[in-house]
Amino acid sequence: MSKQFTSHLNIDALFLGPKSENAVFFREMMEYAVSEHMHWRSDFHPEDPALVTSVDRYEPDYRETLYRTEGILNQLSAKLKNTSVPWFSPRYMGHINADTLMVSNLAYVMAMMYNPNNCAHESSPTTTGLEIEAGLDLCRMFGYDTRRAWGHITSGGTVANYEGLWVARNLKTMPLAIAKHPQSCDLVENKSEQQLLNMSSSDILDLTDELKRRGIFEEVRELSCRGIGIKPGMLGKVLVPQSKHYSWMKAMDVLGIGQEHIVSLPVDENYRTDVEKMREITFSLIEQGQPILAMVSVVGTTEVGAIDRVDEVIALRKECEERYGVSFYLHIDAAYAGYANAMFLNEQGEFMEYDELICRYRELDIIPEDIIWPKPELYQSFKAMCQADSITVDPHKVGFIQYAAGAVCMKDKRIVDLISYRAAYVFEDVEAQSANQHVVLGASIMEGSKAGASAAAMWAAHRLVPLNISGYGKVIASGIVAANWMIKKLLMAEPLVVGKRRFDIHTMPHPDFHMVNFTFKEQGNDDLGHHNRLNKRMYELCSYASGRTYTNDFLTSSTSLVHGEYGDTPWHYVERCGFSREEWEKVHSLYLLRAAVMTHCLRNTDDFDEYWERLQKIFIKKLTQIVDEEEKKKDA
Amino acid sequence: MSKQFTSHLNIDALFLGPKSENAVFFREMMEYAVSEHMHWRSDFHPEDPALVTSVDRYEPDYRETLYRTEGILNQLSAKLKNTSVPWFSPRYMGHINADTLMVSNLAYVMAMMYNPNNCAHESSPTTTGLEIEAGLDLCRMFGYDTRRAWGHITSGGTVANYEGLWVARNLKTMPLAIAKHPQSCDLVENKSEQQLLNMSSSDILDLTDELKRRGIFEEVRELSCRGIGIKPGMLGKVLVPQSKHYSWMKAMDVLGIGQEHIVSLPVDENYRTDVEKMREITFSLIEQGQPILAMVSVVGTTEVGAIDRVDEVIALRKECEERYGVSFYLHIDAAYAGYANAMFLNEQGEFMEYDELICRYRELDIIPEDIIWPKPELYQSFKAMCQADSITVDPHKVGFIQYAAGAVCMKDKRIVDLISYRAAYVFEDVEAQSANQHVVLGASIMEGSKAGASAAAMWAAHRLVPLNISGYGKVIASGIVAANWMIKKLLMAEPLVVGKRRFDIHTMPHPDFHMVNFTFKEQGNDDLGHHNRLNKRMYELCSYASGRTYTNDFLTSSTSLVHGEYGDTPWHYVERCGFSREEWEKVHSLYLLRAAVMTHCLRNTDDFDEYWERLQKIFIKKLTQIVDEEEKKKDA
Repeated sequence: MSKQFTSHLNIDALFLGPKSENAVFFREMMEYAVSEHMHWRSDFHPEDPALVTSVDRYEPDYRETLYRTEGILNQLSAKLKNTSVPWFSPRYMGHINADTLMVSNLAYVMAMMYNPNNCAHESSPTTTGLEIEAGLDLCRMFGYDTRRAWGHITSGGTVANYEGLWVARNLKTMPLAIAKHPQSCDLVENKSEQQLLNMSSSDILDLTDELKRRGIFEEVRELSCRGIGIKPGMLGKVLVPQSKHYSWMKAMDVLGIGQEHIVSLPVDENYRTDVEKMREITFSLIEQGQPILAMVSVVGTTEVGAIDRVDEVIALRKECEERYGVSFYLHIDAAYAGYANAMFLNEQGEFMEYDELICRYRELDIIPEDIIWPKPELYQSFKAMCQADSITVDPHKVGFIQYAAGAVCMKDKRIVDLISYRAAYVFEDVEAQSANQHVVLGASIMEGSKAGASAAAMWAAHRLVPLNISGYGKVIASGIVAANWMIKKLLMAEPLVVGKRRFDIHTMPHPDFHMVNFTFKEQGNDDLGHHNRLNKRMYELCSYASGRTYTNDFLTSSTSLVHGEYGDTPWHYVERCGFSREEWEKVHSLYLLRAAVMTHCLRNTDDFDEYWERLQKIFIKKLTQIVDEEEKKKDA
Repeated sequence: MSKQFTSHLNIDALFLGPKSENAVFFREMMEYAVSEHMHWRSDFHPEDPALVTSVDRYEPDYRETLYRTEGILNQLSAKLKNTSVPWFSPRYMGHINADTLMVSNLAYVMAMMYNPNNCAHESSPTTTGLEIEAGLDLCRMFGYDTRRAWGHITSGGTVANYEGLWVARNLKTMPLAIAKHPQSCDLVENKSEQQLLNMSSSDILDLTDELKRRGIFEEVRELSCRGIGIKPGMLGKVLVPQSKHYSWMKAMDVLGIGQEHIVSLPVDENYRTDVEKMREITFSLIEQGQPILAMVSVVGTTEVGAIDRVDEVIALRKECEERYGVSFYLHIDAAYAGYANAMFLNEQGEFMEYDELICRYRELDIIPEDIIWPKPELYQSFKAMCQADSITVDPHKVGFIQYAAGAVCMKDKRIVDLISYRAAYVFEDVEAQSANQHVVLGASIMEGSKAGASAAAMWAAHRLVPLNISGYGKVIASGIVAANWMIKKLLMAEPLVVGKRRFDIHTMPHPDFHMVNFTFKEQGNDDLGHHNRLNKRMYELCSYASGRTYTNDFLTSSTSLVHGEYGDTPWHYVERCGFSREEWEKVHSLYLLRAAVMTHCLRNTDDFDEYWERLQKIFIKKLTQIVDEEEKKKDA
């Protein structure tokens, strides 16, 4: 029943909608959420005397306090209406934002009224369980063995990335700690320091099992960097693609590793980590005797949505193990595109063969024939993710759940013991006896107190929208489809004419996910600096920067790809726009409009064509404004 | 008008209430919050075609998806009702939980519908401003100069503590970095490494101003531990009271400092940091040439609510500076009791003189004459908080705001530059030009993406309930009053009689805040182990551990004070219970029932007396159950 149903999930019925189309349903359910809780309160020990009577409620100061509450909410509503950004509309294509699921919003409110704290099971007897369940949903989606894996919610991808690197760091120092302790040094007696620092995650975790058997796990753990701190440089390098999110620089600082120990891996012309260069750098570090603390792959960069070749990283690790006896920890930063894993799974949760996948896309009518997604190498990248040690994913991005909801998954839950803590006031013996140790979440993760309501939101979303091809796959596909149509239109568009001036549109032709990067290029302009300024002005006119977004026709975001961060990669785009190499050498920066296309509302060609017609007119209107501004400046 | 009003704030009108007394108002406002947003959606570009039509909404799969959504919410509601904990009721006195403000819950929902992300101003044009404003509210409450200070929301107190230690750590390594750089070494040329590591926070920050003037700030910053990592032990010790929350051990691990560099300060018989021992340890470290990276004072321990003598720490720091030329960073962990600062401020936000304060308490009728609060030394502790470098405070504790809402305040916002980052995709030039640099919050704090709705909740709470004596002061006082009455009743209670057995009640007589710790002691029992088991069983019967909390009569929490953590401090209590020193030496652990009394509903003597009568009967019922269980065990 349930299985059959999921293929009939109606996407439009999941969201409140761009015109509040589901207002009646949403309002009804909100009333339900609130009423259910209110009755729970009044039904709790009905024999208790009323401490606030109806008479009390008619006191002037009582009324005044309520009216004042109302006044503050009026003020807040006015502020929100005045300056918020309409993520819900197809007119918004910018940051990784869209409408969010009704069910997750409603579930949040419902649970918030009970105000559970997922720090400890005692403070959240309902929602700790929901968090564990929702975490395992994600592990299953990534192909992890759910008997051995675990996942949990974080406040966002940044903290998830910290946690991935934190476990990697503590794990990497365990072999040194084992070698130091008189009752465990025999376990690693023939290994050099070099070898100790290059053991594989699973070998180290197997050793921790032995430490537990010998009853010295806690003692040895205190000799790891958790207890004694870290010696700069000793743990080696963290390899992160150039395209990295800035949270990785923060992570190197926070964790005390030091930013100079990050090694930036160059990206190829698709903005993915350059596989050849990654291999060279890795081998060269190994040959220099430099340990590799961790490798980070990015699945969906925040600039262009590029997806690293995870399969190549896995192959490289295997090669390093076989050729040099050297391994490294692999973390995947899939904050943006992680939920796209659902697109590869059938209703039984199995990763489909490529041909079967494409067949199902056609059969379910979720990706039409004119769109090729995924490219075969992308397919391989997703398929290999299950071999990574840990994965960051943001439910508040492509999980369509409201903020704040990040998550981190770990392949082998034994790793949690390397960072876990206990404190008397959140820890009860009754809990220790429980089968699942992780019920005191605050003692096993980076954060402490946290909203149980976030767990309820994520749990409810996963129940309604299964993490497979006919659930999230279907929802995410609608963005991919719109993004691909958008790119086709941009590529084939006639020049936009404003007076005597003509503007071509350029775009990155084959994004890995649903990020569309594009620019307007004036015909005859060979000045890259001027080109960048034109597009920057375009961004300003299409964002909050030019005033109220509510009255704007189109909203987008932007990014700057500079030589310092991306090397010569942007040159390919600059060249296609027709600028000379000299211009690129001079300016060394490319300003792009950046649109994450996540809307579920443009998945029919007719709707899209109509949308595109309007959009072209908006572009001309904006360009006209820019031209006018330039003319005025000239006159002045 | 507004000022006059605040003294007439009606506390009962702030909360939904234990029987949903404010159901009508709450429901009306919830409907308002939802409707306002829905209209905002449908009024946005009314000319746009409907992408989801009424006809679409009558498709079977559409209806099915809605019904399925409803079904999941039914399921969630059932789960929540079955196992949630009734924080809202005066029958709950345990963890630091109570009913939460209606205004913060409603504001959260209102803002959540717009789904702002406070990572960057661009993603939250409304709520980033609200966060800055709410952060400054807290700074003002702590007596910081709001032109120089700054504060922001964190996911909880744990992350706030991390951030406090993070800035301290980076700050402490700056002088070494300055000495290393050829263009800045002149600034510290006569200082030894020892002196460099012991500079005061303000002296270091003044040097950073000079680095900025010379245009080398970024370069030098890269030479601090942020860039190069930390050498274990080199930065010295972090002094934290024995009573510390376990997040401090986590912080030492996460930040790479190493837990062995924490120095536990013994507590006195009030569970506050022992001032004499703190002084001895500090002087002895200095005399050994050991730098002090940071000192942590706790304002409201999670076990007994003890409040450290902050004034003594400030005096000690001054003495160290004068006597040895040595300074240290001071962070206050006021996660629990931080909002109590509001109790000391008049309506103009001024810290009142002691006598004036007591007068106002009587005048406003918020603390009756039979209760002495605050003790004079407590008053001094709060008064001195404005001299600390940073402060953790949890709005989701005594701010009566729902989870997740922690916060950290920093005295001197220049310190943020030691941890700040920039990334192209969240950072726009237009923002850099803005007067307030901190609009890209994600680049200046530990976390990244975060719910703007939390900021709206906190902002609204602070607008309705001012952070002074007649706002939060009044609300918090009602808990303090109930806690003090509770202690009096517990101390004066007749022994509870169950068959032939008689049980005395013991309690810690003078808590600093509203945490009540108590135990049941059977007359004639001289076995401390048995005593602990009795109280542990009592806890189990008064918590989720014995099944559904909803049908329970009284709910509390508990804690275990063990010798390993608290030394001989619990002995005072054990002795008052009548146990021998030998018993204490043998067991070295004291199990306590622990009740944070935060309810606003028991602030009238009549209500409280009636409550106490019922509570005594509940205690007898629970003790009877325990006695029966013991008898059965004997028979078996």
